[in-house]
Amino acid sequence: MLYIVFYDISDDGMRNRVADVLKKKGLVRVQYSVFIGDLNSARLKDVVASLRVLYRSNKEGRFSVMILPVTQAMFNQRIMIGDEFKENEDKIIW
Amino acid sequence: MLYIVFYDISDDGMRNRVADVLKKKGLVRVQYSVFIGDLNSARLKDVVASLRVLYRSNKEGRFSVMILPVTQAMFNQRIMIGDEFKENEDKIIW
Repeated sequence: MLYIVFYDISDDGMRNRVADVLKKKGLVRVQYSVFIGDLNSARLKDVVASLRVLYRSNKEGRFSVMILPVTQAMFNQRIMIGDEFKENEDKIIW
Repeated sequence: MLYIVFYDISDDGMRNRVADVLKKKGLVRVQYSVFIGDLNSARLKDVVASLRVLYRSNKEGRFSVMILPVTQAMFNQRIMIGDEFKENEDKIIW
């Protein structure tokens, strides 16, 4: 199933660690703080467990992550406003 | 149709202005930077237009908003990790 992961994390270092974990787990970055990935239940549990570990180590500031199942059709109807994300080594889904 | 609005905005003042606009437009806050609302196409266009005005006035820092159609069933399967949002005057959807 396709999942979208949004996060709002105020600490720059922690935000980068979350992005690294999501990349390592095979998700693809879509926006500054939005990743998407096709995850079976085992991989989903693995992603959730890793993010919970990071949350417990978060010292200060906002740490809020939402993981939401989504269909490709709905994802294709997304509306983006604002800065485009440019991290060329990532395979970006437009 | 149900829409989820997720934003990653580094400037505190701008982030509050976006939240105020979304509240005024009748969306409900679910997490620090996540709102949800049942919008027809006219209201959706209105929300998008208002957010674009704010984006154009954004001086510095990240300003990234994603609006995504979602079904109630999918929304109910969301996984939240991290700080719970507490703004008691808001009607929060759990």
